[in-house]
Amino acid sequence: MESNLSLFYGLSFLTAAIAFLFALYLYLWVKKVKVQNKRIEEVSKLIKEGADTFIRREYRILAAFGGVVSIIILLFLPSPIWTGNVMMNIAMALSYIAGTVLSAIAGKIGIIVATLSNGRTAEAAEKGLKPAFLIGFRGGAVMGLLVVGCSLLGVAAVLMITGDTTILLGFSFGASSLALFAKAGGGIFTKTADVAADLTGKVELGIPEDDPRNPAVIADNVGDNVGDVAGMGADLFDSNVAAASSALVIAATLSGNGLDTISMVFCYSLLGLIASVIGIATAKVGKNGNPTHALNSSTYVTTAVFMVLTAIATAVFPGFSWRIWGASATGLLVGVIIGITTDYFTDDTKPIVQKVAHASASGPAFTILSGVSYGFVSALPAMIGIAVSALVAYNLCAPLGDGFAIFGIAMAAVGMLSIVGMIISNDAYGPIVDNARGLAEMGGLGEETIRIADELDSAGNTVKAVTKGFSIGAAGLTVISLLGAFMSEVNAALAERGEALITGFDIMQPTVFFGVLIGAAVPAVFSAMLILGVDRNAQRMVSEIHRQFNSIKGLREGTASPEYGKCIDIATTGALKELIPAGLFAILMTLVVGFVAGVEAIGGFLLGNIVSGLLLALFMSNAGGLWDNSKKYVEAGNEGGKGSNAHKAAVIGDTVGDPFKDTAGPSINTQITVVSLVSSLAAAAFVAFSIF
Amino acid sequence: MESNLSLFYGLSFLTAAIAFLFALYLYLWVKKVKVQNKRIEEVSKLIKEGADTFIRREYRILAAFGGVVSIIILLFLPSPIWTGNVMMNIAMALSYIAGTVLSAIAGKIGIIVATLSNGRTAEAAEKGLKPAFLIGFRGGAVMGLLVVGCSLLGVAAVLMITGDTTILLGFSFGASSLALFAKAGGGIFTKTADVAADLTGKVELGIPEDDPRNPAVIADNVGDNVGDVAGMGADLFDSNVAAASSALVIAATLSGNGLDTISMVFCYSLLGLIASVIGIATAKVGKNGNPTHALNSSTYVTTAVFMVLTAIATAVFPGFSWRIWGASATGLLVGVIIGITTDYFTDDTKPIVQKVAHASASGPAFTILSGVSYGFVSALPAMIGIAVSALVAYNLCAPLGDGFAIFGIAMAAVGMLSIVGMIISNDAYGPIVDNARGLAEMGGLGEETIRIADELDSAGNTVKAVTKGFSIGAAGLTVISLLGAFMSEVNAALAERGEALITGFDIMQPTVFFGVLIGAAVPAVFSAMLILGVDRNAQRMVSEIHRQFNSIKGLREGTASPEYGKCIDIATTGALKELIPAGLFAILMTLVVGFVAGVEAIGGFLLGNIVSGLLLALFMSNAGGLWDNSKKYVEAGNEGGKGSNAHKAAVIGDTVGDPFKDTAGPSINTQITVVSLVSSLAAAAFVAFSIF
Repeated sequence: MESNLSLFYGLSFLTAAIAFLFALYLYLWVKKVKVQNKRIEEVSKLIKEGADTFIRREYRILAAFGGVVSIIILLFLPSPIWTGNVMMNIAMALSYIAGTVLSAIAGKIGIIVATLSNGRTAEAAEKGLKPAFLIGFRGGAVMGLLVVGCSLLGVAAVLMITGDTTILLGFSFGASSLALFAKAGGGIFTKTADVAADLTGKVELGIPEDDPRNPAVIADNVGDNVGDVAGMGADLFDSNVAAASSALVIAATLSGNGLDTISMVFCYSLLGLIASVIGIATAKVGKNGNPTHALNSSTYVTTAVFMVLTAIATAVFPGFSWRIWGASATGLLVGVIIGITTDYFTDDTKPIVQKVAHASASGPAFTILSGVSYGFVSALPAMIGIAVSALVAYNLCAPLGDGFAIFGIAMAAVGMLSIVGMIISNDAYGPIVDNARGLAEMGGLGEETIRIADELDSAGNTVKAVTKGFSIGAAGLTVISLLGAFMSEVNAALAERGEALITGFDIMQPTVFFGVLIGAAVPAVFSAMLILGVDRNAQRMVSEIHRQFNSIKGLREGTASPEYGKCIDIATTGALKELIPAGLFAILMTLVVGFVAGVEAIGGFLLGNIVSGLLLALFMSNAGGLWDNSKKYVEAGNEGGKGSNAHKAAVIGDTVGDPFKDTAGPSINTQITVVSLVSSLAAAAFVAFSIF
Repeated sequence: MESNLSLFYGLSFLTAAIAFLFALYLYLWVKKVKVQNKRIEEVSKLIKEGADTFIRREYRILAAFGGVVSIIILLFLPSPIWTGNVMMNIAMALSYIAGTVLSAIAGKIGIIVATLSNGRTAEAAEKGLKPAFLIGFRGGAVMGLLVVGCSLLGVAAVLMITGDTTILLGFSFGASSLALFAKAGGGIFTKTADVAADLTGKVELGIPEDDPRNPAVIADNVGDNVGDVAGMGADLFDSNVAAASSALVIAATLSGNGLDTISMVFCYSLLGLIASVIGIATAKVGKNGNPTHALNSSTYVTTAVFMVLTAIATAVFPGFSWRIWGASATGLLVGVIIGITTDYFTDDTKPIVQKVAHASASGPAFTILSGVSYGFVSALPAMIGIAVSALVAYNLCAPLGDGFAIFGIAMAAVGMLSIVGMIISNDAYGPIVDNARGLAEMGGLGEETIRIADELDSAGNTVKAVTKGFSIGAAGLTVISLLGAFMSEVNAALAERGEALITGFDIMQPTVFFGVLIGAAVPAVFSAMLILGVDRNAQRMVSEIHRQFNSIKGLREGTASPEYGKCIDIATTGALKELIPAGLFAILMTLVVGFVAGVEAIGGFLLGNIVSGLLLALFMSNAGGLWDNSKKYVEAGNEGGKGSNAHKAAVIGDTVGDPFKDTAGPSINTQITVVSLVSSLAAAAFVAFSIF
């Protein structure tokens, strides 16, 4: 059968270029808006400087880490350099570096645009909701387009140049390892500042959020950028690359049936990007409109466009299969369903958030207990959704031939992630309008402007729940297919040694079971390490804030300025110190289990890791969102409103939820992906050198 | 080979009889101690009445539930009554009933002895630590001996009479289903009262624990009995029966090698009981001795005696294997190691508890965050311990022949549970001395007596951590072997239908994976339902306590008595209402997955359930113990001591931890066992009727 692959390589580059051009247009559109308020310009500059400093220092550490890993890769992967093809090792190391660099660039540009948009959004809010929404959204969209464009470009380039999917895993590992640390570092930074600012400001001093007297307020705004823009962007860049890579690794092992699977992966990915471009271009709030609706409806537009475009492509191109289209559509639909059910648990117009708010009236212990409980319950529908979509995708594609079933799961993940450009735009919109709210407060723009900024901010929080459901679901499907990729790598290594291939991982085998138990404990320990990082760091910052209020005269009255820089320093130094250990722990556990107990144990290890990781990620993200919104619900005047006992309890819940939802929960995704990729890359080494 | 089975049936009955006689002796020994303080007698009577009322009402509900289940069993198990042997169905239903009744009897007698011992322990504390310890410990030992005696008697009788191990699973299911609800009901009762008493008494009113002015104080003491004595007894009865049953189910499928595996199971079980008798008989505190040491050293005596006795038996009897002895010894040793590592996370002389106490000084959010984090971390060593012991036991026994490997894991569980008589004694000691402390306070026995009672109580809390590690570890190994039992049942059903047997459950099969994801979510939802039960119920009780303080004149000053009965009523009614849904949810999910997706999905479902269940059980038990002890650490004068902000935060942590460690955490064990047994019992039905 004639493959259209070169056509799709070309189209992939073209689409990436279109996305970059569109991003550039949006960037210039945002940039040409004039900033007039001096105070806002000044504060905005402080935020930008803080974010730049952190990113510079973080990237320096990550560059060192990446350098060490590149050398290890050069020496040992895909096979020890003295035994195999030197060029392959060089290609692997280079593609690893390319993965880290592209991820870093996307993060850096995201921050540039976000810190450019925040002040402009704040000022535009003086004119009304419509213009402010558009600046915030378009600022976020630059990030969305860049991330997906870089991902498509990188994957297509690496595969076209090397023609080897194992090397593609190296690229994906580069993206993942950067994401792991960027997410952890940014997550610790942002929650350190947020928690410390809330506890001292709201709880102890009773001053409003974003009050300029609070020494942590700039650090808090910096955190939104480094955590929610750069960290989240790296995270979704990673997911996107991993989903495409695992689909391609599996596709490369498929043959027969006249199907052009590799072309299909690229075609669907690029159509997803085009759908996102259309969704982004059409996003706006109507008159008296509601920004939540605007964000959600552009998500639905993207979804529909993607399904239609892929259906057309499937009809037009020879070698495309309707069954695979079905698998990818299933993934996307289930993603939407997971998003909607997740929303049920975290939306303050729905009963769950109100119940937690009501429980808060009896004291903080009840806030925590009910939030933890509903957080656990909320995991069930998403777990069922992932399970069902995997099962459907598998069975849809199984009739196509050997190995197609697991390819179906990979394509469900690709489908779920197809609209990731749109998702990132929505996600990055959040920190921009959050910053804008802070700037409106600090710039003294008046109550009506703050109210509009609040409305924009609240929309950001609501869609966040939906997009998080999406990204966790997609990560779940991706790692299931990475399990398939791992098995392919193991069998390739076994075939080379002339040993018997494995057909799967039987849980009745004790080594598999052994791996499952240990793999399941890893995400728990990993997230605990991150939370403890925030915990320690926030305690340091709280002490610093106390010191400033005690030693700077006039600070409480607003006649003197706090030393914002000190707080930014504490957040930066602390985050950088805590950023490596947790990720390293996960990687080392994988290597220890693999070299001690072999590939069967790693199969189990990955399963345990995926399952407990998904459970904990869903639990933490949803419980955190639930607490956040139930605090807002109380602040809106329910259960006694601001200052009541219920409010105090709800604030404690929100503080507990902060590192759950913005540090540990989303990092678990990346942890699972990294561990899966490490396993695939080290598969041959495990086969050759494991003790048992 | 000639089997010594009839010998061991005889010896099992003899050992059970010895245990019962010894229990009777201890009971009479406790009973002959005279109670002189009228106030103590009066309060003790109130506690006894409350506990009796609850147990009566609970058992009435459970009898109705058990009746329905017996009819279902009679009609459908082991095969539909119209297709198979009617006598088998009758035997199955009867053995199910026997399991529930024996469990209920053990619980009921445990409460009789505990409520008899508490007042006597309090009065003895006036004379000193030594006599008080002995009463408390021997009261608990009655329960320990009864539970293990009943278990051995029941298992031996059912197997001797029916000769069918599937029927034995019915007996085990009876024990489990009663335990599931007794544990849930008792756990909800006790924590409802405990949480409400603490929040209103300690936090709001600033009155000491067990102050007689608190309307919830009697309910709190009743809760110790129905939750920690009756519930825990049912739980460990269940684990013990399940471990022996799964070992016997697997043993029945083994043949060849001249090994007498069934005899070995009985021999090891009865030697465990004898070792416990010896351990109990030798337990005492020396002069100026420390009750924690006394409890721990009798546990170590029991462990050593068990290992020596089983070694002798292995040497003496033909058909016993050293490899199997090794597996069982491994289980026991790993149990001890898990206990010790668990202790590290919950002992207030060790750094973790102190760190959480220190974090509390920065506010309750930090108490929660650090406790949750260390709770997650604490799961790792235990998971590794279970994984390693399963792997070692498997590999030790694999050379013995087909199927022996999984039998090795079952024997590791039997080994870990061999000393369960001792463990229950230690566990039941806890609520007795806890009650005694309350009675000393309410009876006005003076500060020195309360101090002694406190010391006894604190020892109870410390050893609890160790015993909980043990029981979770044992449950882990038991359910791994139940997975083997499930596969045996599936293959028996497949063989009967002439279909191909299965050799395991491959995680690359999507139905297995589907099961894993859903099974993993079940313990999370199950525990959430229990916690929400406590949450709702405690809020009702808090309102009632507020009502009493507002409407009863002189209550605050201590000149009028509170209406204790109202609080007991609320706890009782609430617990009974919340007791069925969570357990039913777990059972129904199993049946739905089994009938929809078949036995492969159930294999995955059990794996997911075991893994996430173990993780959550360890997390919840340890985090709860950690918070409890860090509160005590602060109360001992650290971080500002009583009344400080750190203390308030630590009390909130303790309140969150209460339902974690005493309601949800320990119930998860039982949930896992029940689900495993339901799967095994319904295996044939799943094979015959599943949709996919």
